[in-house]
Amino acid sequence: MRNNPSLHFGIEEHRTRLERIWRKMQERDIELLVLSDPCNLYYSTGYDAWSFYVPQVVLVPLGSDRPIWIGREMDARGAQLTTFLEAADIDPYADTFVQSANSHPMTHVASVIRNRGWSHARIGVELGSYYFGARSWDVLRAELPDAQWVDASLLVNWVRVVKSDAELSYMKDAARIVEHAMSVALERIRPGVRQCDAAAAIYHSLISGRENFGGQYASSPPLMPSGERVDTPHLSWTSEPYRRGTLTNLELVAARHRYHTPLARSIHLGPAPESARVLEAALVDGIAAVLQCLRPGMTAAEVETLWQGSAARHGVRKRARCGYSIGIAYPPTFGEQTISLRPGDDTVLEPNMTLHLMPAIWHEGASMVITEPFVVTTRGCEPLCNFDRRLFIVE
Amino acid sequence: MRNNPSLHFGIEEHRTRLERIWRKMQERDIELLVLSDPCNLYYSTGYDAWSFYVPQVVLVPLGSDRPIWIGREMDARGAQLTTFLEAADIDPYADTFVQSANSHPMTHVASVIRNRGWSHARIGVELGSYYFGARSWDVLRAELPDAQWVDASLLVNWVRVVKSDAELSYMKDAARIVEHAMSVALERIRPGVRQCDAAAAIYHSLISGRENFGGQYASSPPLMPSGERVDTPHLSWTSEPYRRGTLTNLELVAARHRYHTPLARSIHLGPAPESARVLEAALVDGIAAVLQCLRPGMTAAEVETLWQGSAARHGVRKRARCGYSIGIAYPPTFGEQTISLRPGDDTVLEPNMTLHLMPAIWHEGASMVITEPFVVTTRGCEPLCNFDRRLFIVE
Repeated sequence: MRNNPSLHFGIEEHRTRLERIWRKMQERDIELLVLSDPCNLYYSTGYDAWSFYVPQVVLVPLGSDRPIWIGREMDARGAQLTTFLEAADIDPYADTFVQSANSHPMTHVASVIRNRGWSHARIGVELGSYYFGARSWDVLRAELPDAQWVDASLLVNWVRVVKSDAELSYMKDAARIVEHAMSVALERIRPGVRQCDAAAAIYHSLISGRENFGGQYASSPPLMPSGERVDTPHLSWTSEPYRRGTLTNLELVAARHRYHTPLARSIHLGPAPESARVLEAALVDGIAAVLQCLRPGMTAAEVETLWQGSAARHGVRKRARCGYSIGIAYPPTFGEQTISLRPGDDTVLEPNMTLHLMPAIWHEGASMVITEPFVVTTRGCEPLCNFDRRLFIVE
Repeated sequence: MRNNPSLHFGIEEHRTRLERIWRKMQERDIELLVLSDPCNLYYSTGYDAWSFYVPQVVLVPLGSDRPIWIGREMDARGAQLTTFLEAADIDPYADTFVQSANSHPMTHVASVIRNRGWSHARIGVELGSYYFGARSWDVLRAELPDAQWVDASLLVNWVRVVKSDAELSYMKDAARIVEHAMSVALERIRPGVRQCDAAAAIYHSLISGRENFGGQYASSPPLMPSGERVDTPHLSWTSEPYRRGTLTNLELVAARHRYHTPLARSIHLGPAPESARVLEAALVDGIAAVLQCLRPGMTAAEVETLWQGSAARHGVRKRARCGYSIGIAYPPTFGEQTISLRPGDDTVLEPNMTLHLMPAIWHEGASMVITEPFVVTTRGCEPLCNFDRRLFIVE
């Protein structure tokens, strides 16, 4: 392992990560892990680049501290600059493989696996990951007919759920950035202002960051539907001006060294209807109940029950999950895809897990987003952000 | 087809698109097309949301002008707001399917296909598309054992390569935005300025857009590696200040109603070395040669030969493809994945195709990006942007 000063974490932290991954591999009898999720490439080696639109993998051999990066020729130097890998373990494919009708990068991946003696190995692949497409899977299987395949989806994601102090520190940096961006948003959204201009100011704040550190591109853009679009979670701004009498739901997320901290608030231009006040109370009380009562040792489902119990007293019920694990992210999502705060998720919460309590409601004509990212502590939990929990109203 | 005033194109244009898709389906004997590429969802129905991080598809039955949208429950209203689909053709799945260990959204997709009578049909799927993952493919096949599967990857992408005038008009809007953002970048990048602050100003410009229309989130962030990172195409800014004597490669892209126009330029802080002048001349002359000599009827490979021939006179050769088709995009890339300007690509260029001539060079210690998006016309081609083609030098 090369002690590259550009790494965002010490070499010892990287060694510990590998050891935790090997342990999970051993439990499932996996000799070689083929990682394709960009989050897991970053976590296992430090590799950080916008190159995941072409197939790229990291091979993690059980017990070896020399993972192998395979990607596009023009990205090999990025691997050298951002990872602890030795030059011999950066094994790129030629550009002719890219988006070609006649050849596929996975044939190169398969040949590396064969040449290094793993053609009969028990190999874990991330069948559920973004960027491990259907064709990649078909090609890899066809090229390595003697391998035994194991679905190792989320194996590394589950290693990632408990954060180190260094990781937490980046998430707190991101929290500082997203708080500031939210305050910019709440200042800029006014009747007559074009939605795209408010979005531009928010982006500026998310990327410029704070005095001591800048922001990075995040996994997701600011989602900030307004007016008739507000009851849908995944539409965003338009070029139209904000109008008086309308609600805007702001879901922002900041990134610092790929660690993401999200925060959401709603803003109403003009006096809010009574129904909005009811939702506000339900969301705010529900969050307070969770922050006060959550203890390590509880399950994710029990946390959801806490929130629903509190919200029910306001006559509110959320159908979708009310939170999920957060940490490293690349597009298209900042959810870690592991823990969900919903019925049936029996994950036991441990200190240094980080979650986004996301009890947002999108019912037609009655929606609101007030959320809280938090870290589980030895005694309970602590919010990552420090931002007023309420519906913001511009009179 | 519902004439939704929120559509970005007239209902007649949407009908024409469907007819062109049916024709391609017929050629390949496909009865039902399962689209999963978000670009193709947008193209076929108008659906535009940041929801592609969960499985979602559009079913296009041959000859029917009633495609079916299938996605997550909370996104159904987004489908209603952004598409021409009738309510009966929006068929969402429950939130319990999302990122669950026990159930997969493709079981719902399969049941819709079964219930509507296509369980024995010849079905086209986009095996090569982003967001049609390995597990989606495994589940769909297992759930529909009697279907005949056809790899229909890029079928709709190939329909998209020739743009309508309305599409071109959005790409020209995006060109106005990206030109402006590039001028902001060239003003802001100065020794001592933090890279993240320049990136913030660029984002502001890309999203705020112009007086008459704003920008949208693009498929990709500004890629702007500087200093020691400059020889890699896919790293981006850091929190460090720009330093005198270094080069920065700026690859920007603007989006207007999902139509993307990219533009790239390099900037050198301080006098540039002679080697940079050689690269500059090679890139600029090569682009001029292509813009002057390209004619509809040429193949993509012939265009590449034009560029390489011109660059060779400066002793420069590019290993990777030197351009590709552009248009609608979502993360993670703005390439259409159809035409590549490289040897062996025999696509015949036609009027209203749009390409990014991208003869960027990333050799260690010698890299530069000067690019030109253009549209093929009846007589030749026209650049979409109007921006000085040169290496920018700040003395």
